[in-house]
Amino acid sequence: MTFVATVLSLYPEMFPGPLGVSLAGRALREGLWSVDAVQIRDFATDKHRSVDDTPAGGGAGMVMRADVLAAALDSVPAGRPVLAMTPRGRTLSQDRVRALAAGTGVTILCGRFEGMDERIFEARDIEQVSIGDYILSGGEMAALTLLDACIRLLPGVMGAASSGMDESFETGLLEYPQYTRPAEWEGRTIPEVLRSGDHAKIEAWRRAQAEIDTRLRRPDLWERHEGARVQPPSGARRRNGNDKS
Amino acid sequence: MTFVATVLSLYPEMFPGPLGVSLAGRALREGLWSVDAVQIRDFATDKHRSVDDTPAGGGAGMVMRADVLAAALDSVPAGRPVLAMTPRGRTLSQDRVRALAAGTGVTILCGRFEGMDERIFEARDIEQVSIGDYILSGGEMAALTLLDACIRLLPGVMGAASSGMDESFETGLLEYPQYTRPAEWEGRTIPEVLRSGDHAKIEAWRRAQAEIDTRLRRPDLWERHEGARVQPPSGARRRNGNDKS
Repeated sequence: MTFVATVLSLYPEMFPGPLGVSLAGRALREGLWSVDAVQIRDFATDKHRSVDDTPAGGGAGMVMRADVLAAALDSVPAGRPVLAMTPRGRTLSQDRVRALAAGTGVTILCGRFEGMDERIFEARDIEQVSIGDYILSGGEMAALTLLDACIRLLPGVMGAASSGMDESFETGLLEYPQYTRPAEWEGRTIPEVLRSGDHAKIEAWRRAQAEIDTRLRRPDLWERHEGARVQPPSGARRRNGNDKS
Repeated sequence: MTFVATVLSLYPEMFPGPLGVSLAGRALREGLWSVDAVQIRDFATDKHRSVDDTPAGGGAGMVMRADVLAAALDSVPAGRPVLAMTPRGRTLSQDRVRALAAGTGVTILCGRFEGMDERIFEARDIEQVSIGDYILSGGEMAALTLLDACIRLLPGVMGAASSGMDESFETGLLEYPQYTRPAEWEGRTIPEVLRSGDHAKIEAWRRAQAEIDTRLRRPDLWERHEGARVQPPSGARRRNGNDKS
């Protein structure tokens, strides 16, 4: 089955872009996913083909018009989740990526300028998604990022050996550090345990390293991980990142 | 002054990619930034031009070799921050983007497969950066995202009117909702206050909306915001997202 990505944008020429290369590119050519980039401007109704206007109440920049966005969106086949990439959205997680990749596709609305007229979100069923707490020049790069994350999880895209379950976030922890040949490089050696051949010891070492690195580098992730492990689901109690118990 | 991005990748053809279009593309043509994409494989030393090998200790996938990565990195002019895009890195923030954009450029190492041999991070001064808690097929899309966020902040790229200080995250809050013409659409009107012409009232309404939306949509951001406002910098006390005071 083909995973269908429909992207609504003022810059449809950005797609597939980097997704036409490497792993995603091969999957595209094999028909495991497809992308249909729709030019929002084609749904403008005035003679200037305007897609935006000045913000109500004043302020810098331009706001994308709800009527034009709705016309573009309504032209797309229904039945797939509709996402809008915006810094005001819910932060993207690996769980959400996995759920989207298990579906038949996504429709993605890419904003530019100062954002979209808020009424589009009241009038249509749209999930607002943010890929992180930083500002991009538009939703296109966020859409490419989200699609890249989904595509690698589609059946047949990665080899069976790399199901990805060992990776960062899948267990609520960062992934353990990796090493490979040469055994010695610039006087630095690979940790002894990894050369021991003792699979139980290696497993335990990797788990411990993942925990240490998560605690040090991502206390927020560690806190959530510990909270999920030791507390009842409804527990509102917060924990300090260091008091592992 | 030109902001110089040097990207080390197994897929240099991905650059500038979507950054050759729109705002970033115009800035590229105007010489406000430049990108030099370096093929890591050119620094392989064996006859097969290998850049990776199996993980020490076993496991799926391949790990990028420290010696090849170091050779590629050492070929690049020094003096700019060196970043590696990896899910094990520190989460990218708008503050970090702003600091990077204020500099002369960045060198970015893009991983593929199961990541890079950890010794590269011990042996070289590299900042590990993650753009979010999800897994991509490689560091390239993360690098494009980071560069997009930086480029729009370079002097001369955005109009003076859009300095970006009103946006999500710049104040520690999400941005307020936006509206534009038409005044009525599908029976939905623009909030009365935005048509009042009373700038103080508009400002207050926008501030209140930004606070409400941040509290509802991003309790994590709200907690940090409130923490920064009412607590001493060293305060480790946690707050519930709802008890604004």
